[in-house]
Amino acid sequence: MDEIRAAADRISGRVRRTPVVTVEPSAFGHPVTLKLEHLQHTGSFKPRGSFNRLLSHTIPDTGVIAASGGNHGLAVAYAARELGVPAEVFVPETSSPVKVRRLVGYGARVTQVGRQYAEAYAASVERAAATGALVVHAYDDPEVQAGQGTVGLELAEQAPGVDTVVVAVGGGGLIGGIAAWYGGTVQVVAVEPHRAATLAGALAAGRPVDVDVDGVAADSLGARRISGLTLETAVATGVRSVLVDDKAIMDARQLLWDELRLAVEPGGAAALAALVGGAYQPATDERVAVVVCGANTDPADLAAVRSAS
Amino acid sequence: MDEIRAAADRISGRVRRTPVVTVEPSAFGHPVTLKLEHLQHTGSFKPRGSFNRLLSHTIPDTGVIAASGGNHGLAVAYAARELGVPAEVFVPETSSPVKVRRLVGYGARVTQVGRQYAEAYAASVERAAATGALVVHAYDDPEVQAGQGTVGLELAEQAPGVDTVVVAVGGGGLIGGIAAWYGGTVQVVAVEPHRAATLAGALAAGRPVDVDVDGVAADSLGARRISGLTLETAVATGVRSVLVDDKAIMDARQLLWDELRLAVEPGGAAALAALVGGAYQPATDERVAVVVCGANTDPADLAAVRSAS
Repeated sequence: MDEIRAAADRISGRVRRTPVVTVEPSAFGHPVTLKLEHLQHTGSFKPRGSFNRLLSHTIPDTGVIAASGGNHGLAVAYAARELGVPAEVFVPETSSPVKVRRLVGYGARVTQVGRQYAEAYAASVERAAATGALVVHAYDDPEVQAGQGTVGLELAEQAPGVDTVVVAVGGGGLIGGIAAWYGGTVQVVAVEPHRAATLAGALAAGRPVDVDVDGVAADSLGARRISGLTLETAVATGVRSVLVDDKAIMDARQLLWDELRLAVEPGGAAALAALVGGAYQPATDERVAVVVCGANTDPADLAAVRSAS
Repeated sequence: MDEIRAAADRISGRVRRTPVVTVEPSAFGHPVTLKLEHLQHTGSFKPRGSFNRLLSHTIPDTGVIAASGGNHGLAVAYAARELGVPAEVFVPETSSPVKVRRLVGYGARVTQVGRQYAEAYAASVERAAATGALVVHAYDDPEVQAGQGTVGLELAEQAPGVDTVVVAVGGGGLIGGIAAWYGGTVQVVAVEPHRAATLAGALAAGRPVDVDVDGVAADSLGARRISGLTLETAVATGVRSVLVDDKAIMDARQLLWDELRLAVEPGGAAALAALVGGAYQPATDERVAVVVCGANTDPADLAAVRSAS
């Protein structure tokens, strides 16, 4: 908690205090307070962790380095630009031109290496060793997780009475920070796609294990292995793990548009999918908060016609 | 103010208390607090006025009646469904099948009459005289405006220090309510498209006058004549009128997506367009709130690629 409070002070003014909205029972089958973290800079919660890491160090002249063609890369590039330091981002050769263009748009130097994320990551570590640049890991880092934990700090202030906080899990940076903030005082529910169940797999094995990754949310929740730090926090604070399928994710995504005109990415709808798909069934009086964590989506595939429902 | 307070009590639990988010100067050229009223039921502020009108009367067995193929029609149909009373909505024959389907989706009986809104409106009034149904005017009604004024009441609580509130104007229901709430204690800026300048035209003429209507926001801001009540309130409270062009509206709409991942309709971006297009230039220290009032848009035409900027 102290580290998260310190992170909040450190990144204050650099990140948005995103709002919450409480939605009546009819919309999602249970009253829900949504934390609209997808309104954050770059469209996801990731800048919180990036800023906390960058602001915790004197940045070398060679700048900062990350491996990610997704939300983490955007966040590191954005934070580096805001702080006036160079950023190198390694992405696989298979990354879409659109993603590369976004990174370049934030001023990052982009290097495409290998066919898979693991190769780009390895290249980024090698490069950092050569240049001395500060590595910003996407999730398995205490400073990054303390930054993400400020979502929990804000939510606790904005929705003080909640019993349960529902959070999507990729590599575990966000839920690691949020679970650390609450420290077991509220129930934290970890939601993962069946086909990217890094935390569920680690809880079953007792240690982080590689899992196969696929499905509609793989671009944002498709880490292959949970952060060891997150696993420790999850076990220590009693995080509950549930799984959702792709249909529940896409239904939740469409419902967010139909009911609230929120256009989010599949990973950003995964936490809500646990409620609307029934993977997590709250008690009648349970006060539930759901973190909406990302919106780097092409809104074109939201069905406008269905917005009548 | 008393009527707006009473309206807030009356509609409490029926409408959402929509959140605000404060956005740093770099996004829109000036720090802005956005009132995210497009997260309201049916995607616009309109249910506030509809619920206040319906809950202020004993509804006859023949129900309620309105003329609108747009946000007002949706709101009346929604409010009627929630309160368990029948709704008839008159729309022009030229209304899109999508809009008609949305109204039917809320359980309304839809009648298509005439080529223009005025004909549909006349038919609705005639029908109401025959059936005794309660007419819900889209804007020119004290109960409707008191309901819309609850946006001002909430905003005053959520952002107590603002100097200026910027609001889009169609027929004037929303700004009439908001200006009445503030009563001249903050500056209210009325934003209209050049090609739908009902308030500017009325201020110039000293009375409501018909104006020609066209442009990208015509479907939501395209009333032909300002509410007489709104004109009175605007003059009495010193509302300032500014005009924006279609390009500024579409730029503001795209910026809301690029900077905050908010997908809104052109009319919902019109108020912000006054800031980003320069029609309203706040002083350096001026604390500005902008009402984002509608999101009944097809998100497909938002340029996802530009979301890097």
